[in-house]
Amino acid sequence: MFYFIIDILGTIAFAISGVLVAMDKKLDLFGVFIIAFVTATGGGTLRDMLIGSTPVLWMQEPIYILTISVTVVFSIIFVKQLKYLRRTLLLFDTIGIGLFTMVGIEKGLSVDLLPIICIALGTITACFGGVIRDMLCNEIPVIFKRKEIYATACILGGLSYFVLILLPFDGAYAYMGAILIIITTRLLALKFNIALPNIYQSEK
Amino acid sequence: MFYFIIDILGTIAFAISGVLVAMDKKLDLFGVFIIAFVTATGGGTLRDMLIGSTPVLWMQEPIYILTISVTVVFSIIFVKQLKYLRRTLLLFDTIGIGLFTMVGIEKGLSVDLLPIICIALGTITACFGGVIRDMLCNEIPVIFKRKEIYATACILGGLSYFVLILLPFDGAYAYMGAILIIITTRLLALKFNIALPNIYQSEK
Amino acid sequence: MFYFIIDILGTIAFAISGVLVAMDKKLDLFGVFIIAFVTATGGGTLRDMLIGSTPVLWMQEPIYILTISVTVVFSIIFVKQLKYLRRTLLLFDTIGIGLFTMVGIEKGLSVDLLPIICIALGTITACFGGVIRDMLCNEIPVIFKRKEIYATACILGGLSYFVLILLPFDGAYAYMGAILIIITTRLLALKFNIALPNIYQSEK
Repeated sequence: MFYFIIDILGTIAFAISGVLVAMDKKLDLFGVFIIAFVTATGGGTLRDMLIGSTPVLWMQEPIYILTISVTVVFSIIFVKQLKYLRRTLLLFDTIGIGLFTMVGIEKGLSVDLLPIICIALGTITACFGGVIRDMLCNEIPVIFKRKEIYATACILGGLSYFVLILLPFDGAYAYMGAILIIITTRLLALKFNIALPNIYQSEK
Repeated sequence: MFYFIIDILGTIAFAISGVLVAMDKKLDLFGVFIIAFVTATGGGTLRDMLIGSTPVLWMQEPIYILTISVTVVFSIIFVKQLKYLRRTLLLFDTIGIGLFTMVGIEKGLSVDLLPIICIALGTITACFGGVIRDMLCNEIPVIFKRKEIYATACILGGLSYFVLILLPFDGAYAYMGAILIIITTRLLALKFNIALPNIYQSEK
Repeated sequence: MFYFIIDILGTIAFAISGVLVAMDKKLDLFGVFIIAFVTATGGGTLRDMLIGSTPVLWMQEPIYILTISVTVVFSIIFVKQLKYLRRTLLLFDTIGIGLFTMVGIEKGLSVDLLPIICIALGTITACFGGVIRDMLCNEIPVIFKRKEIYATACILGGLSYFVLILLPFDGAYAYMGAILIIITTRLLALKFNIALPNIYQSEK
């Protein structure tokens, strides 16, 4: 139940981010809906297609399509007010990537993938909805560009999970611990402006 | 046999639309072929990957690859004449999305998906070939932008199907009825210039 | 063992091509890694999703993720020196598409696809990593534009394979022969500047 609520909050945050990007591009109602849907479900959909877990999750759980539809309607109506919620949305989004990473890792473990591959799968789950959103909006994916700690937080959290389950920890604690590490890493990085190392030094 | 002919006509119309977009972008012969192929088969391919119906349809029915190859060759040779066929092509395309929507819905039902998910799957089948075409051509998908009744017609037709089968109708009549509703909706919308509601009122 | 080495060399060449395109776009470290990964594995990943061979190959063989990670690190450090290796890289890339085409064809045969579909699958394996790379970098895929003999070499090689196995040839010879035909075709086309026929003559 607890995870379910996080999942829905994350889905809402992702869908709103999709609505904002799509409205920025002046897409029509259908376009806005599709971008919101893809942002929220794209990562999990790609994950399920990569491991062959089909029909993909949103096809089996209509709660996603309903949640996103309601989110899109409210977001369009209250688009101006959304600007004042930026911090709340950022928090939901951060909690969302934390949970989505772990959902991806669990799915990977359930089909016997190696830890390194599970971490990749978790990162795909958390980050590729935004990547597909940007591809559809004809932009280079923002997470490839802004040197922010975003995917990196997912990777770190995934690594921590596999370290934590080696220690005498209960699986549930390791799961929760990894989510907290992802959230903390991202929030600290935002607060203290920590970025990935610049790889273009030589061009000063 | 009847549906088979519609299917091939729809495939030809979609492939021609791909050739025209690709030639507009000055792609080479291989590029034109791939764009035509993706426009005609992309929606069904995505559908099959989402539900795990693999190898995807065009791999099992070589008629598609042959039809598209022949269409590409003729379209390139007669590209100037194609302009005079615009209305015929639009009609084929409209019949095509009607049928493709219902093919997608049937496939969804065959794997026990809920009606709302089947309608989504039908719309993906009909519309996402064009979406992938536009992504490959580095454009924002045209169906996200032009406020036209296109995907909306597919969604309406899909809804009608599930209403019709609740009534004491034979399945085949509901199927045909839904296709006619999609075609009629789109043609009426084109004729009377009906569009999706504008969601950007506040910016006059 | 021999094929394994070619496979790794091809993967390295593809990953380097990804690094170069991504650095050209000034992506950050994560972006560069993803583009390199997608360039090297995207074709095979799409192939596996199309035929339903999941989890896709790179998830089952961690050697790819490791090879690409090391390649990315070295490529970023020695990016200036890479310019002097252009010919070597081109050779690796050419050997790579030769092998990748045949790997795709073999996979297609293993799930009982028709020869024409297997050739398409082989060409997808060899060429679509680059296509996805270009989509992510917000460019029209380069192989759709430059009129070069690239995908065409894969298609020719694939055709030759099915001709060769009809002759009283051992399968392994046909396999190797097809790879050599792909490599030779591309190198000759580069050397003598052979291109696909221009389909835009009428616009002089």
